Amino acid sequence: MTTSRKISQKLRLLSIAAAVFSTACAPLKESGGPMVIQQQGSFAVGGTVVTNPGTFDPYKPTPAGQTLRGDHAYVFYQVPAKARQFPLVMWHGIGQFSKTWETTPDGREGFQNIFLRRRFGVYLLDQPRRGNASRSTVAATITPTPDEQQWYDVFRVGVWPTYFEGVQFARDSATLNQYFRSMVPSIGPIDIPVMTAAASALFTKIGPAILVTHSHSGGMGWLTAVNSPNVKAIASYEPGSGFLFPEGEVPAPMPSSGGTLEAVGVPMAEFMKLTKIPIIIYYGDNIPEKPSPNPGADGWRFRLAMARQWRDAVNRHGGDVTVVHFPEIGIKGNTHFPMSDLNNLQIADHLSGFLKSKNLD
Amino acid sequence: MTTSRKISQKLRLLSIAAAVFSTACAPLKESGGPMVIQQQGSFAVGGTVVTNPGTFDPYKPTPAGQTLRGDHAYVFYQVPAKARQFPLVMWHGIGQFSKTWETTPDGREGFQNIFLRRRFGVYLLDQPRRGNASRSTVAATITPTPDEQQWYDVFRVGVWPTYFEGVQFARDSATLNQYFRSMVPSIGPIDIPVMTAAASALFTKIGPAILVTHSHSGGMGWLTAVNSPNVKAIASYEPGSGFLFPEGEVPAPMPSSGGTLEAVGVPMAEFMKLTKIPIIIYYGDNIPEKPSPNPGADGWRFRLAMARQWRDAVNRHGGDVTVVHFPEIGIKGNTHFPMSDLNNLQIADHLSGFLKSKNLD
Repeated sequence: MTTSRKISQKLRLLSIAAAVFSTACAPLKESGGPMVIQQQGSFAVGGTVVTNPGTFDPYKPTPAGQTLRGDHAYVFYQVPAKARQFPLVMWHGIGQFSKTWETTPDGREGFQNIFLRRRFGVYLLDQPRRGNASRSTVAATITPTPDEQQWYDVFRVGVWPTYFEGVQFARDSATLNQYFRSMVPSIGPIDIPVMTAAASALFTKIGPAILVTHSHSGGMGWLTAVNSPNVKAIASYEPGSGFLFPEGEVPAPMPSSGGTLEAVGVPMAEFMKLTKIPIIIYYGDNIPEKPSPNPGADGWRFRLAMARQWRDAVNRHGGDVTVVHFPEIGIKGNTHFPMSDLNNLQIADHLSGFLKSKNLD
Repeated sequence: MTTSRKISQKLRLLSIAAAVFSTACAPLKESGGPMVIQQQGSFAVGGTVVTNPGTFDPYKPTPAGQTLRGDHAYVFYQVPAKARQFPLVMWHGIGQFSKTWETTPDGREGFQNIFLRRRFGVYLLDQPRRGNASRSTVAATITPTPDEQQWYDVFRVGVWPTYFEGVQFARDSATLNQYFRSMVPSIGPIDIPVMTAAASALFTKIGPAILVTHSHSGGMGWLTAVNSPNVKAIASYEPGSGFLFPEGEVPAPMPSSGGTLEAVGVPMAEFMKLTKIPIIIYYGDNIPEKPSPNPGADGWRFRLAMARQWRDAVNRHGGDVTVVHFPEIGIKGNTHFPMSDLNNLQIADHLSGFLKSKNLD
């Protein structure tokens, strides 16, 4: 073979390799196309062990002398190739599980895939007594009660059976079917210290990471950041309750047609930990500005108001909290689930921008 | 720039591209290293809708006029780049959920990753009323009862607190902790028609696929194959009950110190569907050959015996069932969970070989 033929052949082989690289292994795209996952797996974290007195007899087994582990969180994680410095820990809200962050009800990619494509490690948490972490140490009675129309209203898709005008939610029955089937019962009480202990144990296990909360996990997220110095930032979508104020600075309870919202007092030293990390809070659209007889929507009026009070309190003490009410920056139609709404790529862009601005990406 | 310098530069650039390809995007390896995922997501499938009589009032919500969707299965799926023809649907056993196929208790890769690396699409199923599919339409009372030592025995890790000699199970407390935390309660009864309807709906949705069952899903797997022509083959690890025989050919109940095993009669036309697909059944080690006073192990003696009777019945009618008792082919020490045992790559190799031999890979 001549030298030029050898070079030509080598070029051809390398061209093929490069072509394979560019098609089978293209850089992660915004949507669709392959993702290169460096590592993925699952584990239980936190929890307790109940030990029954007595001695276990393998030949005549009874509960005597046996153990039961429960109240742990369950985590499924994926780390993409060339992952950024801090992974995202995504924590669902009330009546939900990790599905919140997965495929959207209308079948598009959720925050799990979107942020994997943006090269973040993604840890999806099922809190204790929920979903894949449903092994509880306390007894529970589950009574299935038809409640979907009420959640449709509370989650601000509309006022059943009407959709809000311009709502970022697909208007077909298959979407609603998937939406409602993403709910699961709590297997036992939502015991705040149990939940936050498991989430804190996760941060101890994985090290520094960014916490992304939704709704009911918002309040538990603040407590987790108080517990764990590994929480490097928090992005909280529509936190619903559990705003922590310094004892003596707790605002009065806020009544609404959707219930009364109460803040929580904590010692100043604990509160001050929340002033050390950047925090962003997001709320969607169709939150009434004045008292509304619609209890589904009205609860969010005071949650947004309290989030602003909390922002001011944390920032007054030297913190870095931002509240983004999406309609005010021209992002319209979002429900209680911006991470799965039709414009969730735009919603993700805002979070990406926040992380970049804080040098956390 | 001279021609030779241009060629030299082009070669260097292509070499870099090839090097990036070979490291960041190497062909899927047996363990570790990146995986190229073409698609991943989750959905609910099957299930029912309960509708309460009355009219829903959004301003004064009560259960009247509301709906509740439940009894669906939940599925998380991943399809690798260049996927093989048929994906694998993996269905957990009793007291378990999709974790069965994920990271092993000692932290290695389970069948989910192993078969993704072998370029199979992998669908992990949570059956209705379990794990992420825990929204049930029937009431349930969950009473946490310490039971781990009993499962240790039934799952043939050993006779608590002793490990079987040579057992394929890591002997450290962190492993046992993860092992026991992979259990979840059933949120409502294990209603066989409800379970098999959801699994059958999955096969209707995704098309032809191979069903991989474990323990209690073994029997429900046979029923799913009777329901759905899209079940192209079944690999069943340690099926525990629900062997389907033609009415009139049902063997007598088999009593053991671990309980009595009863076969199920079905019309001949249904049974005959099981003769149309290749089926392989696997059992692990430490199953007693003679009656044993250890109820944990003894139940498996008759399950293995009935599996062999069932194999003979299906094959007598023209079927293609193989029973592999691992110790008989020199694979020793397996527990009730061969898919997560220390030798799970060897176990996976046997399944790969089976699929190849049937032109299903």
